[in-house]
Amino acid sequence: MKLLSYKHEGRETWGAVVGDSVVDLGQARPREPGLLDYIASGEYTNAGEHVKGLSAHARIEDITFLPVIPRPEKIVCAVRNYMDHHQEVLAAGMQRELSECPPIFLRVWRSQVAHDAAIVRPHVSESLDWEGELAVIIGKSGRDIPESKAYEYVAGYSCYNDASVREWQFHAKQIASGKNFESTGAFGPWMVTADEIELDRQLKLETRLNGEVVQSSHTGHLIFSIPRLISYASTIFTLSPGDVIVTGTPAGVGWSKKPPRFMKPGDVCEVEIEGIGVLRNPVVQQN
Amino acid sequence: MKLLSYKHEGRETWGAVVGDSVVDLGQARPREPGLLDYIASGEYTNAGEHVKGLSAHARIEDITFLPVIPRPEKIVCAVRNYMDHHQEVLAAGMQRELSECPPIFLRVWRSQVAHDAAIVRPHVSESLDWEGELAVIIGKSGRDIPESKAYEYVAGYSCYNDASVREWQFHAKQIASGKNFESTGAFGPWMVTADEIELDRQLKLETRLNGEVVQSSHTGHLIFSIPRLISYASTIFTLSPGDVIVTGTPAGVGWSKKPPRFMKPGDVCEVEIEGIGVLRNPVVQQN
Repeated sequence: MKLLSYKHEGRETWGAVVGDSVVDLGQARPREPGLLDYIASGEYTNAGEHVKGLSAHARIEDITFLPVIPRPEKIVCAVRNYMDHHQEVLAAGMQRELSECPPIFLRVWRSQVAHDAAIVRPHVSESLDWEGELAVIIGKSGRDIPESKAYEYVAGYSCYNDASVREWQFHAKQIASGKNFESTGAFGPWMVTADEIELDRQLKLETRLNGEVVQSSHTGHLIFSIPRLISYASTIFTLSPGDVIVTGTPAGVGWSKKPPRFMKPGDVCEVEIEGIGVLRNPVVQQN
Repeated sequence: MKLLSYKHEGRETWGAVVGDSVVDLGQARPREPGLLDYIASGEYTNAGEHVKGLSAHARIEDITFLPVIPRPEKIVCAVRNYMDHHQEVLAAGMQRELSECPPIFLRVWRSQVAHDAAIVRPHVSESLDWEGELAVIIGKSGRDIPESKAYEYVAGYSCYNDASVREWQFHAKQIASGKNFESTGAFGPWMVTADEIELDRQLKLETRLNGEVVQSSHTGHLIFSIPRLISYASTIFTLSPGDVIVTGTPAGVGWSKKPPRFMKPGDVCEVEIEGIGVLRNPVVQQN
């Protein structure tokens, strides 16, 4: 099942994709005002039953998407987590060793942007780069989750463009700044529930800029696996329903190219992940 | 005025300190269910008027404190932001240059803990260190705030113990992990509204472990000033009412001592800042 958050005729709601339309589960289930609440209730695993008998709310092309989870409690992002990306970083002349533990940083929800909405290049830097990534949405609360049980905590998967302002990412030794510009973290178009994605399956991931393939890899290149990331993060804090774990980007980012290449206003960036869908975002300049 | 979040007789509320008691503004002002809402309303600048005629809710020693803002939208923390701390880090043999921009990282609200509550040493590491810091609470929403107007966005000040699990802070090149363990970021006991703290005043800051002074400095040693931190953060994203900017720690942290010294269960750590108060926390072991 594909679940999503969206806006239609001025009202924010959430629902499921059925055929070429969306079904308004937010109206049908008023006790769960957002998709995050639906996940927290545990009822999302019965979404197939819940959409039965409900009529279409709107055609997909007529809705305004919202980030899959508009305000997650936490957005935990992995850095340098694809072997092919690690190798291109070394080739670009940066001296980095693989670390024994997953390097992570946090995004704030305010940095997120929906499918079809504009990724905003800030006025302070032109070094806006793409990073196509697989996002994991947490389904239930847990702390100190062992790797062997980690998949039990996954509600579903989505596409993420962890767009990064490279200059600000590197100008102060801590990368959080360049990773948190408002309207840069694209998240969508929907989440595919975990039952539809075979565990440990190698999902093809492709990023396209104006139709040209710039990243082409698969999740088999992950250095730290999804269970490892979940276990590691949950050692630090309780993971909560709706939390998002963004798993890192493969080779092909713009700043490792010679010369470096960045996204500019007028560009369209797409992240496609096998079995999930295509996340598409135009790029605009900050006002 | 001192404003705080607290719990009494099983109910969470917020209010103001008057003498040796607290006044329950949460009950008197039901349209503002939390201190964050009171700040967002802009009405906090009239707190002196709002407490008039209200009787005491409880004596301070009888309440259970909550983190001043229990769930801020964002907690933005500065790293290496005191010249005396920078010098001790160099003396400890770490090679670091001062950066031209403020290095920042993010905390999640779930890592916070209240005054009088226990800072929790996780089971994965004994390297739990203190970091006494001045916290700035944002009063109104703003983006791209110039330094010259930054103080207009400050609602008040508080004490913060940015307690850090050093091993996890350094084991993966990104420090977010070691800075986000659950129940490590102590925040309290209250916020003192900005009108009571003279701008750019050098506030004495002292951290004590079991009564022994381990950090003794003042905010005049800040490398990046409060206006600079506000301006920098607001270039990245919109600052919102109740956001917390934790300004960094001075010299005297445990891991720079020879041999390194850490907090252990049974210890009591205090952070005292001139004009604000004393934040006190016992240390316990994670269950």
